[in-house]
Amino acid sequence: MNPFSARKEKQVLQLGEHGLIRKIKAWLGSCSPEAPYGIGDDAALLNFPVGPVAAAKDCLVYRKHFDDSTPPELAGAKLLNRNISDLAAMGAQPAHALLACLLPPSTSFDWLRQFYLGLKEVAESNSIALVGGDITSTFEDLAFSLTLLGSGAKQPLTRKSAQPDDTLWVTGSLGGSLLGKHLYFKPRLKEGRWLADHPGVTSAIDVSDGLATDLHNLCPQDCNIVLDTDSLPLSEAAHTQARKTNLNPIEHALMDGEDYELLFTLDSAIGIDDFLTRWKQSFSTPVTCIGSIGRLSSEPEKRVQYRGAFKNFKGRGYEHF
Amino acid sequence: MNPFSARKEKQVLQLGEHGLIRKIKAWLGSCSPEAPYGIGDDAALLNFPVGPVAAAKDCLVYRKHFDDSTPPELAGAKLLNRNISDLAAMGAQPAHALLACLLPPSTSFDWLRQFYLGLKEVAESNSIALVGGDITSTFEDLAFSLTLLGSGAKQPLTRKSAQPDDTLWVTGSLGGSLLGKHLYFKPRLKEGRWLADHPGVTSAIDVSDGLATDLHNLCPQDCNIVLDTDSLPLSEAAHTQARKTNLNPIEHALMDGEDYELLFTLDSAIGIDDFLTRWKQSFSTPVTCIGSIGRLSSEPEKRVQYRGAFKNFKGRGYEHF
Repeated sequence: MNPFSARKEKQVLQLGEHGLIRKIKAWLGSCSPEAPYGIGDDAALLNFPVGPVAAAKDCLVYRKHFDDSTPPELAGAKLLNRNISDLAAMGAQPAHALLACLLPPSTSFDWLRQFYLGLKEVAESNSIALVGGDITSTFEDLAFSLTLLGSGAKQPLTRKSAQPDDTLWVTGSLGGSLLGKHLYFKPRLKEGRWLADHPGVTSAIDVSDGLATDLHNLCPQDCNIVLDTDSLPLSEAAHTQARKTNLNPIEHALMDGEDYELLFTLDSAIGIDDFLTRWKQSFSTPVTCIGSIGRLSSEPEKRVQYRGAFKNFKGRGYEHF
Repeated sequence: MNPFSARKEKQVLQLGEHGLIRKIKAWLGSCSPEAPYGIGDDAALLNFPVGPVAAAKDCLVYRKHFDDSTPPELAGAKLLNRNISDLAAMGAQPAHALLACLLPPSTSFDWLRQFYLGLKEVAESNSIALVGGDITSTFEDLAFSLTLLGSGAKQPLTRKSAQPDDTLWVTGSLGGSLLGKHLYFKPRLKEGRWLADHPGVTSAIDVSDGLATDLHNLCPQDCNIVLDTDSLPLSEAAHTQARKTNLNPIEHALMDGEDYELLFTLDSAIGIDDFLTRWKQSFSTPVTCIGSIGRLSSEPEKRVQYRGAFKNFKGRGYEHF
């Protein structure tokens, strides 16, 4: 669905700012608390249990993160889910969202309504309130910027706290997300909270730019990451894509972005089988040990050492710029 | 200064996302805490004293809120100051900011650096840490979306809590902000916190869209606002503008946006002179009583009753759409 309309009466311009805000409040229903706890005052007032607040911010841009082939509901759902995935990777529990809409005047009212309804569905199923934001007109680009706030875990999952000999793990399966998962993924929120509470989990990140890129972010100073390319959990979509591209599905698992799986490290004192047993008692989501942290190299380009069939792999994941 | 560069080596594109983030951290210096308390993890972890968190979000769009005549430092300062003004109007104390940059690939690196330095100056002088955000490329529009978080006041200043007979007040002076104040204003942060602590202050808002528009937001159900147009504190710029436009300076005070003054109501049990005395003990900022809350009218179009020379005034302030 194209997000614009040539018919004046179908354009957001027609409603004016205050009319549009009223509509948005109606679309959001129970996800939109009354001011000052939601939309309608100079700022929103949020209550958090004592402890750190976790804050993430992620954008969605037309023709970059979605296009005319994307149902608007799925674009709205994706924007919120991307941010939830960031909080999941900290072990945090999302609670409040603020949304900035940057809209060309010809943005279609119907498109926007469906976008909000998709966002609302994800908000409701995760008990997230949309508490504020901003609407501004642009000249050409249609974009959204969402800030998601939540309660931090007692022991948050950070990126750079892995130790040498830690084992390296990933949830779910990787590769080929463009075939659908980039729109239909379910962030690993419960898994992230469980990991934050689990003794011996030393660091975590969500795989959004592709494993080959995100791996680097988990690598502590003066260490490297040893990745066994034969052990990677390949999605069906990775295989399907590989048949089209003549690449190997392993390359898709390494380079395709938007898996939204959790990548984490585990203290080597915790046995692999022990951990797997405890995981399976809580989740049906697969989890796979795919490597370990080595004791090497402060040279950034040697931070990842590949082993197995793709030991000479040189590719990278997605670059936003 | 035009925000774009035709020379490839001067464009942000050249740096890539990670290179640009490294630069931004360097530009921000002490305003950029180490991850996970700042830029560099999936989400930022923020510590707040027990109590509500106040959250505001405001955008800045090229050719709408600033243009080539705007020094980039002032554009950056303005974006943060707009959000500070929102928190000021809640009586809140800003603490953490997240910034989304929506940048066409040809955005000039030099322009962006100066933008950040202007933002940093305001952040430093208000002890605000920039703790995260997002960088995304767009096709044409250059825009920024900032989320500002702070500690809420014990008794927050909300919009809809005025009572009949309350007196109506405004800080500073109004009108003609386009001549400079829209870039050089200092948000009424201390005044806002003082008002939140002061007994009898019943509601507040910042004047950003023009008094004639923002007034409506302070009007409780089944009340109206009685505004004495003769008492309005007129800025010098309102007089200067009036000479150019052949309007009356009072009309500029009513309609021009971006005053970033505080508009608030005071319980009628508190005497005007008493209040003025206490105010002057704390601030050199002027404050003026400009009207009161009446007991009329659930009809939205009759919410504001003008008195004095401009008793038949019909204009409105700025509409964002």
